[in-house]
Amino acid sequence: AAFSIPDLYNGIVQRDRSSLARAITLIESNAEQHFSLAQELLQKVLPKSGKSLRIGITGVPGAGKSTFIEAFGMHLCNLGFRVAVLAVDPSSSISGGSILGDKTRMEQLSRHPNAFIRPSPSEGKLGGVHRKTRETMLLCEASGFDVILVETVGVGQSEAIIRDMVDFFLLLVLTGAGDELQGMKKGIMELVDAIVVNKADGDNKPLALKTKKEYNQILHFLHPATSGWRTKAYTCSSLYLEGISEIWNVILEFEKNTKASRMFNERRKIQNKKWLYSMISDQLHYRFFQQSEVKSVLPRLERAVMDGEKSVSAAVFELFNES
Amino acid sequence: AAFSIPDLYNGIVQRDRSSLARAITLIESNAEQHFSLAQELLQKVLPKSGKSLRIGITGVPGAGKSTFIEAFGMHLCNLGFRVAVLAVDPSSSISGGSILGDKTRMEQLSRHPNAFIRPSPSEGKLGGVHRKTRETMLLCEASGFDVILVETVGVGQSEAIIRDMVDFFLLLVLTGAGDELQGMKKGIMELVDAIVVNKADGDNKPLALKTKKEYNQILHFLHPATSGWRTKAYTCSSLYLEGISEIWNVILEFEKNTKASRMFNERRKIQNKKWLYSMISDQLHYRFFQQSEVKSVLPRLERAVMDGEKSVSAAVFELFNES
Repeated sequence: AAFSIPDLYNGIVQRDRSSLARAITLIESNAEQHFSLAQELLQKVLPKSGKSLRIGITGVPGAGKSTFIEAFGMHLCNLGFRVAVLAVDPSSSISGGSILGDKTRMEQLSRHPNAFIRPSPSEGKLGGVHRKTRETMLLCEASGFDVILVETVGVGQSEAIIRDMVDFFLLLVLTGAGDELQGMKKGIMELVDAIVVNKADGDNKPLALKTKKEYNQILHFLHPATSGWRTKAYTCSSLYLEGISEIWNVILEFEKNTKASRMFNERRKIQNKKWLYSMISDQLHYRFFQQSEVKSVLPRLERAVMDGEKSVSAAVFELFNES
Repeated sequence: AAFSIPDLYNGIVQRDRSSLARAITLIESNAEQHFSLAQELLQKVLPKSGKSLRIGITGVPGAGKSTFIEAFGMHLCNLGFRVAVLAVDPSSSISGGSILGDKTRMEQLSRHPNAFIRPSPSEGKLGGVHRKTRETMLLCEASGFDVILVETVGVGQSEAIIRDMVDFFLLLVLTGAGDELQGMKKGIMELVDAIVVNKADGDNKPLALKTKKEYNQILHFLHPATSGWRTKAYTCSSLYLEGISEIWNVILEFEKNTKASRMFNERRKIQNKKWLYSMISDQLHYRFFQQSEVKSVLPRLERAVMDGEKSVSAAVFELFNES
């Protein structure tokens, strides 16, 4: 498909959904000839971007992320906001898992005229998924979306990357803090601005309230993710739509506080800077490790170093002087 | 000074302290002509290295690290072990802080014939301090030291680096878990194999026992740093030498368990591999950012990216195509 940058740009800023979708496809393309076109488009939309509230949502599989996003997203859409939902990893519920189940659960939101749902980009080189998600966020903002929800699975390393991508980061959990904490990286509690105990309904409600208390006790010992903001635990029922508007109010309060303290803009600047250096680093590694000389000697050096036959410094010296 | 590698090697393996000290000076040298000599020496000693128990000790300033190391080191020396004490950062107590105070406190150990104390190397390029400490560790091992104590201050990023350098990692704390946790990165509790509440003596003892209990409660929720090993809290009095031999027994039990499960050797292999890739990465960054073309355009690009005037991808593209 041929891409016309002026046409895509006009479509995006005029809030045309198919232009936005096509532009994201261009951003996601791994074809080399698309890269400079994508960059041209990004540069054009940049002045129109940055005006949304960027919210990250994480949680272990089964924490009910898609049900929560459906309920939370519908709440925002009904308030008149335009909401884009992006996923960062292929295992996120909006793209992975049971497709039929997810379709059913996110059905309402996916049909709402104010919502735009985009599954995770397929893997590409150079930390490409995160780059593509960030750039997709900019396109959505230029297309007038007020809130961007970025979903990720709370396992592995993606949480720190999401933290560097969003203004507000929310961890969705189930009842039984202790059990769940066992399966979760603890560091995540110091990355988030709120912990929401989901499925606080029916028989589960007393346990959810107890869990909330337990999380608040642990949070008491931890550093907050955002200086000047106290991370707390909340409960909600995505099924019965209880606690959803309260969470939105917490986020609005967070936005108000951090904008007043300039923390909001400061964080975005730092995020941009970190992103720049992380992409430089990705490029350096990619360019180095794809060299055929490096590819041919590295396995032998790595083995010798692991087995204690060669010092690390000697291996590095050899690597940089043979390639 | 001229360095003779065969002489240094012979001196090291014959446990001559001044040869060891001179070899460390060679490793620490930032002079380019010393680098290949140092690598030649390292390659020679490598088969003789690796036989010690490497123990990392961290804690916030004031936790009593030098007093603990004095007491713990003396205990090991009196058992007949040869003990080397290295510091990783200039602010560690054996090199920074009040020099007079530290000398007094570590006086006994520093005069013991089984002990060797080496302060932190001064800063060099390329994560040089950590490289130098690792390589110094290898030299000490080749010189027959049975236990290497690596000291660092429990703030900043050095803990993760020490974790990747040692077999057993110990966190020294004071009473009042809550208060102290406030000033400490929480992640550190998931990096260590034991938490030792120091200064459990006199009026402070009941509080120390309470603190131990509090840490054990928190540890219950966390992942252990070493799979198959349960990280627990202990108390000790470095002043009255109480609990010191118990801590050594814990470490011996750890060694026995992890050697039986092969975790011990597996971790060392992985440490070597990580070290290799981290040095490659250091080299790549160093070589890139020292280029004059990069130096001249980077500040402008960084500013434009932070202010949202230029997309990160465009900045990176420009950087790699202008340099």
